[in-house]
Amino acid sequence: MHEETTPNHLVIFMPSGRRGRIASGTLVLDAARQLGVEIESICGGRLTCNKCRIRVEEGQFAKHGITSAQSHLTPASDEEIRLLEKLESPDCRLSCNAKIVDDALIFVPEESRAHKQVVRKAATDRIIDLFPTVRQIFVEVDNAELGEHRGDWGRLQDALAAKWNLHNLTIDLPVLRELQANLRKGKWSVTVTLWQEREVIDVQPGYQEGVYGLAVDIGSTTIAGFLCDLRTGEILATESMMNPQVTYGEDLMSRISFAMMHNDGLEKMHTAVIEALNRLAASTARAAGIRQRQIQEAVIVGNTTMTHIFLGINPIELGGAPFALANRDSMNVKARALGLRLHRSANIHVLPAEAGHVGADNVAALIAEEPYNQEAVTLLVDVGTNAEIVLGNKAWMLSASSPTGPAFEGAQIRFGMRAAPGAIERVRIDPETLAARFRVIGEDSWSDAWQIGPQFPVEAQPQHLAAGICGSGIIEVVAEMFLAGILLPDGRFNPTLHHERIRWDERRGEYIVATAEQTTTGSPIVVTQEDVRNIQLAKAALYAGTKLLMNEAKLTHVDRIVLAGAFGSYIDPKYAMILGLIHDCDLAQVTAVGNAAGDGARIALLNKHKREEAQRISEWVRYVETAVHPDFQQEFVGAIHLPHATDPFPHLNGLLPDPMPNLELNGNGRRKRRRRRNKKITTKEEK
Amino acid sequence: MHEETTPNHLVIFMPSGRRGRIASGTLVLDAARQLGVEIESICGGRLTCNKCRIRVEEGQFAKHGITSAQSHLTPASDEEIRLLEKLESPDCRLSCNAKIVDDALIFVPEESRAHKQVVRKAATDRIIDLFPTVRQIFVEVDNAELGEHRGDWGRLQDALAAKWNLHNLTIDLPVLRELQANLRKGKWSVTVTLWQEREVIDVQPGYQEGVYGLAVDIGSTTIAGFLCDLRTGEILATESMMNPQVTYGEDLMSRISFAMMHNDGLEKMHTAVIEALNRLAASTARAAGIRQRQIQEAVIVGNTTMTHIFLGINPIELGGAPFALANRDSMNVKARALGLRLHRSANIHVLPAEAGHVGADNVAALIAEEPYNQEAVTLLVDVGTNAEIVLGNKAWMLSASSPTGPAFEGAQIRFGMRAAPGAIERVRIDPETLAARFRVIGEDSWSDAWQIGPQFPVEAQPQHLAAGICGSGIIEVVAEMFLAGILLPDGRFNPTLHHERIRWDERRGEYIVATAEQTTTGSPIVVTQEDVRNIQLAKAALYAGTKLLMNEAKLTHVDRIVLAGAFGSYIDPKYAMILGLIHDCDLAQVTAVGNAAGDGARIALLNKHKREEAQRISEWVRYVETAVHPDFQQEFVGAIHLPHATDPFPHLNGLLPDPMPNLELNGNGRRKRRRRRNKKITTKEEK
Repeated sequence: MHEETTPNHLVIFMPSGRRGRIASGTLVLDAARQLGVEIESICGGRLTCNKCRIRVEEGQFAKHGITSAQSHLTPASDEEIRLLEKLESPDCRLSCNAKIVDDALIFVPEESRAHKQVVRKAATDRIIDLFPTVRQIFVEVDNAELGEHRGDWGRLQDALAAKWNLHNLTIDLPVLRELQANLRKGKWSVTVTLWQEREVIDVQPGYQEGVYGLAVDIGSTTIAGFLCDLRTGEILATESMMNPQVTYGEDLMSRISFAMMHNDGLEKMHTAVIEALNRLAASTARAAGIRQRQIQEAVIVGNTTMTHIFLGINPIELGGAPFALANRDSMNVKARALGLRLHRSANIHVLPAEAGHVGADNVAALIAEEPYNQEAVTLLVDVGTNAEIVLGNKAWMLSASSPTGPAFEGAQIRFGMRAAPGAIERVRIDPETLAARFRVIGEDSWSDAWQIGPQFPVEAQPQHLAAGICGSGIIEVVAEMFLAGILLPDGRFNPTLHHERIRWDERRGEYIVATAEQTTTGSPIVVTQEDVRNIQLAKAALYAGTKLLMNEAKLTHVDRIVLAGAFGSYIDPKYAMILGLIHDCDLAQVTAVGNAAGDGARIALLNKHKREEAQRISEWVRYVETAVHPDFQQEFVGAIHLPHATDPFPHLNGLLPDPMPNLELNGNGRRKRRRRRNKKITTKEEK
Repeated sequence: MHEETTPNHLVIFMPSGRRGRIASGTLVLDAARQLGVEIESICGGRLTCNKCRIRVEEGQFAKHGITSAQSHLTPASDEEIRLLEKLESPDCRLSCNAKIVDDALIFVPEESRAHKQVVRKAATDRIIDLFPTVRQIFVEVDNAELGEHRGDWGRLQDALAAKWNLHNLTIDLPVLRELQANLRKGKWSVTVTLWQEREVIDVQPGYQEGVYGLAVDIGSTTIAGFLCDLRTGEILATESMMNPQVTYGEDLMSRISFAMMHNDGLEKMHTAVIEALNRLAASTARAAGIRQRQIQEAVIVGNTTMTHIFLGINPIELGGAPFALANRDSMNVKARALGLRLHRSANIHVLPAEAGHVGADNVAALIAEEPYNQEAVTLLVDVGTNAEIVLGNKAWMLSASSPTGPAFEGAQIRFGMRAAPGAIERVRIDPETLAARFRVIGEDSWSDAWQIGPQFPVEAQPQHLAAGICGSGIIEVVAEMFLAGILLPDGRFNPTLHHERIRWDERRGEYIVATAEQTTTGSPIVVTQEDVRNIQLAKAALYAGTKLLMNEAKLTHVDRIVLAGAFGSYIDPKYAMILGLIHDCDLAQVTAVGNAAGDGARIALLNKHKREEAQRISEWVRYVETAVHPDFQQEFVGAIHLPHATDPFPHLNGLLPDPMPNLELNGNGRRKRRRRRNKKITTKEEK
């Protein structure tokens, strides 16, 4: 047996608890790597990034079997002491400078861990582990010298291999083109930006910091973008905008028709979305105080038609059976190949789809909500112009899609608008007076508390008047109109009602939600008969799709419902159920999570392992073709009424007035009209 | 032990001799694959490509241990018989249709072998093994069906995996964009073009044939291109053109200066070469009768400045010590990333360089000539505007470069031109009459046999008159002028000569090579004093570089000299030695191989293994910095004279007239003038 010449020390890293014997004189940073503990470090030991702070725990040694009590590490240099004082961390050490000379228990604070966690800002406050695909490292490269012919890229590769253990790297041509100038400008010290640990996408002179990414959910009607700091996971800016493709058709089928009917149809729609994304990148970058060219990666989700058009692939095959995708898997494409003006070497990751009509947006919602990790049977409904529905738990999962149309996103609604300041998002109608009170985005107080008019001081008046109605608002107002008896169960305006809030044009009524003085334009905001019809068609399509999926699974009820949707504020589950948007369920088990697809895109941007999970899940979920199912039409027609007429809804008890103001159910489940008396409303007997 | 249910047969493939036991009923094609014998097949057994013909050898069984004499294969179907008759191969079988049912000795004819060989059309007639990186395969893909969601690309991948054992493929975005249309157009049968067995670069409907590649040598002065059929290795078209960058500087240093002095200098030169290559691709494609968009790969070689500019990399670092390359290794880049109009998904392979001044062109010359596989010490000189010199054998190899200037390529020569019809390529001067006779490219007869003038019928007159002098012509004419006494050893026109062939402008002479009636313009073609000076400077730079390399290797002579050069026809080694272009060597061991760099580019285009060899060799050769060597100036000055004045040239004995017409060597190796008498020439004694 040979004798060990270098003594070993027991080293334990907390909080991970990883332990092992480490040769004396090893840098703490290297010891951590040997034991699989990832400590953040960009500068690689140059005492510039100050990311790798650790703390030696003095008190707790005995219980971990460490007995020595002092001098676990080499003493700090003056430079290190100066730095730590500047960082107000005098009790810490820099792991790239301190060497192990005795047993040590080392605590790695949260901010020094290579893979941090960020709390997702959503209803469910999920934790996102930070494993971005893009990272920066600082490296010193050998000077070019006469008689040494590796070339600058060869020299950089050698430095990255020796100091960061990175091998088999490629370099993007635009980066290579400026490599020589940047190496010399940085005096052979550069910050390298790496993608997927395999491609060099930037080389900047000297020590630099800053990696940013953009997550985008391209909806048929709304595009939502999140600009994130890839080092912290923080959202720096959020922006949503209309999808400019609506010019070419409001829903997917009309976009597909446009591509089919016009030779340049695809190109026009592709250009429109690319230009929109360029504006989105510009405005989020501006809001975050960075340059658009600093966005080094983007993750894109969207329904299949949207991702096809985004990639420049003609969506016509998605317009008819068998709804064949060009590609179901995730893809990486250079931003510049699509005309996206991000960092010149930025990559775009498009999440995978599940089937012809269930796209990357649904996969994104899945990796955000993870119903596949739960015992409870969950129904995940992502409401948009095309609704995606997923049903299942950890053992099985079915998906379907339903062409709801854009009504829930405020399109096809007279005063519909996206969720922006001034959009009506909450509505209550007094069943006695039929007057509405509402709340708009950007204003805390309800409209009945607004102080409007010259008699009030300017500072007391609301900042935002009503400008329109967003998705959650339209759902509430239609449900409230029904509860107040303004709408009949079949969706018609009650023709017996004559009231100042209801205007009649021939036989088509419209209801005044906001009066002239409450709006930005000075004209009232109304909900028309056609608006109501469009909401009915949308909710019926959604319900029918869900119903068929439940039939497929031989289920009559679900444990949980997750309501997702990119259309502004969260839907109130109660109104969703009154409207018959969702199935009967214990309301305590219904959650609205907002833009889950956008959240999923952001999660995939921040965590590369979730991309792999997305690919696995996309192949695992079984898609059920509901739109062409022979029962679809029947279920659709059955779901037109307010609320659903033929299915039992025990959980609606207590939500609907009992008896209903103007209707009751007859013996066979069909409702019959019921006379309703109200002092302030003039009613007439129906003939 | 389990009993074998399927009988095995002994199968031997010739000429490889590979043998093994094959299960009964196995297709001959599959049996070949199992035994590692590669048989050509594009259609994969669809009886359309007819590439896989084999022959069963009936007579020779006994000696190979095969005893049965008949019915080795299943009988041919009517379709197969019809096809084979059409192909006039009635004694063959198609290996994709015939199954093995008994022991068999199978001969695979040359044309059916997957890796054919082509004879290189060059002086040395080397054999090139055909292993192109691009190949086509025919595949039938599952139809898209409702309820099956792989996507078209997924379906194609599955088909390629199942039928061709191809995995982990990627698809180029433009191909994906048209995948769905092409699959349907071909009724789910398509021809896939693969690059490097890993990227799908084309999908065409139905069964298609045709893969083409372009090999290009970008010289400082001349660009040469070879369009090849990648299935046969055949050269379909050859074209050479001026490098349009000469507008920005004649030699490398002036190009580098131009990039340094002008902000848009790089861009201008990059655009110029890309446009030239686009013209080259267009004209070679036209000549070959294919479309430019059918060129699916290109291999580029050139000196380091040329490849840097071609890739859009600023060459300024190559302009001064330490002459750092941006990248020394080989690269693959999409043609479209550079603006090259080839196939939309074509890749460009740039061969590696060796050092700052020894580029991919020299590596190409090396893999063409393979001096590294030989025992003999070879000096490989690639003459161009920048000359690359390699010295060595299988054990060691040194390289150097010398800035010769563009004189050898016909630039800086009054009547210089590239090797095109009408270029003077051979010259003889009668030492008695001082009259020249010459041969031009495109004309078999020497000029003294030309029948010019109204007295001769048109069909008897030469097709091409003299238009200028190409590289090999200028070397011969200067050497002949020296042999004839027109030039003194120091390169001056002999001032004592007065002759109708020599014109004097002040004290600068010029020699009439072609008389007015022999030229296309009607004016004489002359060689001026300045032309001679430029040739002297070029050959001295070349010689000095070679000399320093030989000093480095401590050699005074070499076994072989290989003279390469892109400047038209082959250099006559005799004249090269008289001029002092090369070192003393047994003339039988001096070969001129023409454009070896272009040959190497073509070899790399046709054989991917040679690309790997190029990468290995480029790292192995040791570069010697000669241009900045302290002895360079001295060697350069010593090499200015005609022939070399200070080195011994025993092999010139018998080539130079003895005694020299007008000179002899004095005791210390310096020549002294010698009186020369000639009846027809008026000579004057020098003072």
